[in-house]
Amino acid sequence: MSLVVVGSMAFDALETPFGKTDKIVGGAATYISLSASYFVKPVNVVSVVGGDFDQDHIGLMHQRNINTEGVQVKENEKSFFWSGRYFNDMNSRETLVTELNVLGDFDPIIPEAYQNCEYLMLGNLAPQVQRTVLERLTNRPKLIVMDTMNFWMDIAMEELQQTIGMVDVLSINDEEARQLSGEYSLVKAARKIMAMGPKFLIIKKGEHGALLFHDDKVFFAPALPLEEVFDPTGAGDTFAGGFIGYIAATGDISFENMKRAIIHGSAMASFCVEKFGTERLKNLGQQEIDNRVQQFVSLVAFDTVLS
Amino acid sequence: MSLVVVGSMAFDALETPFGKTDKIVGGAATYISLSASYFVKPVNVVSVVGGDFDQDHIGLMHQRNINTEGVQVKENEKSFFWSGRYFNDMNSRETLVTELNVLGDFDPIIPEAYQNCEYLMLGNLAPQVQRTVLERLTNRPKLIVMDTMNFWMDIAMEELQQTIGMVDVLSINDEEARQLSGEYSLVKAARKIMAMGPKFLIIKKGEHGALLFHDDKVFFAPALPLEEVFDPTGAGDTFAGGFIGYIAATGDISFENMKRAIIHGSAMASFCVEKFGTERLKNLGQQEIDNRVQQFVSLVAFDTVLS
Repeated sequence: MSLVVVGSMAFDALETPFGKTDKIVGGAATYISLSASYFVKPVNVVSVVGGDFDQDHIGLMHQRNINTEGVQVKENEKSFFWSGRYFNDMNSRETLVTELNVLGDFDPIIPEAYQNCEYLMLGNLAPQVQRTVLERLTNRPKLIVMDTMNFWMDIAMEELQQTIGMVDVLSINDEEARQLSGEYSLVKAARKIMAMGPKFLIIKKGEHGALLFHDDKVFFAPALPLEEVFDPTGAGDTFAGGFIGYIAATGDISFENMKRAIIHGSAMASFCVEKFGTERLKNLGQQEIDNRVQQFVSLVAFDTVLS
Repeated sequence: MSLVVVGSMAFDALETPFGKTDKIVGGAATYISLSASYFVKPVNVVSVVGGDFDQDHIGLMHQRNINTEGVQVKENEKSFFWSGRYFNDMNSRETLVTELNVLGDFDPIIPEAYQNCEYLMLGNLAPQVQRTVLERLTNRPKLIVMDTMNFWMDIAMEELQQTIGMVDVLSINDEEARQLSGEYSLVKAARKIMAMGPKFLIIKKGEHGALLFHDDKVFFAPALPLEEVFDPTGAGDTFAGGFIGYIAATGDISFENMKRAIIHGSAMASFCVEKFGTERLKNLGQQEIDNRVQQFVSLVAFDTVLS
């Protein structure tokens, strides 16, 4: 059940209709590992930060049994920084600042203790960095899940497709699926993308839920209708963390179990958006996670037999 | 189980990325009654057409046990005509022509045989016309379902709210729910709209499915991911027809049964979009409807117990 998570650890500065933050801790590996830590221990992280990174946050990760041995600290450099502003509908945003800093020449190191991991989550990063991680693992994990984004489709499509060809599960949003495949219909897009290599494809649709494709099968998981979406930052990564964490905990990579993993990932994402940044993910109780999963079960449950 | 359907019967001229049509038969009452006719017989229609209306289509409706006694024919006038063009994503469209014709001064007549109906579906029409129908029914039906659209919110909000206050189930899309309530969050919007009168609210989200709200409960039905959406015209009305038809057939107006009704409505809508206009709704078999409903069941089904 050993899990390795690769991705950025960063500072974000966010503006939403509800307020704004100064630099707070963010990054794909941060959200993924926090979310996964509610299902499996330890979560082994591969990342890179600057000397400016928040030591209290590293402490929190350790408390949650997240292993940061694979997190390089470049003392004289600065951490990756992203700043963005969400519009009123919370479904669209604009990037205000992107400073790659330590991420610009990230050369991932896999500690010896991480070798022979069974589950690997490749958070969004340059596709050649994701591939380097795969090449540096002595044995191929039982399941490799990869997240990416449109940015790499714009500037590195060939390398991206090469990396996609090496993974088991690809997780992208609907617009990215359309861009990657050149198909508007998500059913056609899924077929083309699975022909690139991944046996499973997750298409995330934000407030409209998520689809899981495998062979000619499809599963749909709704998003929970929420009173208020406070800050959507990290929701996709939190979803991915819940997904891979649940699979690592159960050790079952069947389509049936992936359905349950998607429901658990969706439940974790529904917590994430309730507060700024990682705030809501720092100290969840098992009971509130169970209750939230039960809300997803109720949301789509109906009895086909006439009453 | 007697059902009355009120709404337009019209000619539409459509352009989609897949082709265009000359005038073909459309209108809310046409789609609703065809869809409902697969669940309950007879379907009693209240509408108005001009002398130009398609007699073959009236014949088809009769074959499907749709009673057109309440359809006024104004021999020297023309039927309602709408022309529209869909954009590439099929989720947005522009209106090219709207000619109200006979619909401009529609004064609905309720034949004696329609009185004492148990189920009433008010398709999209001017809210004062919908209210006139309610006033002309001797007894209040067991369940009144109402559809409307943003157009009436723009020009007749007060009359619209008055009519909404008289019905049991309101069916609108997400943008209309936001406009009607002034709330972006659909959870908050639903609460405000139910405070206007309806005990149940259906929010249609097109390719993203539909939500059913009642008290503090919510049910989510997905849309089937389709290879190709050929023509979305009438999908919302076909959904409504399947919904009210299923309820009329089962005689059960509980929240639990409405969930099943929404799944059946969604299944009917998924047929509608496969061909131009009403083409796909003319001759469906019971087996293909059952199979389609089963696809919806499978789409969201997962076992919460670990395998």
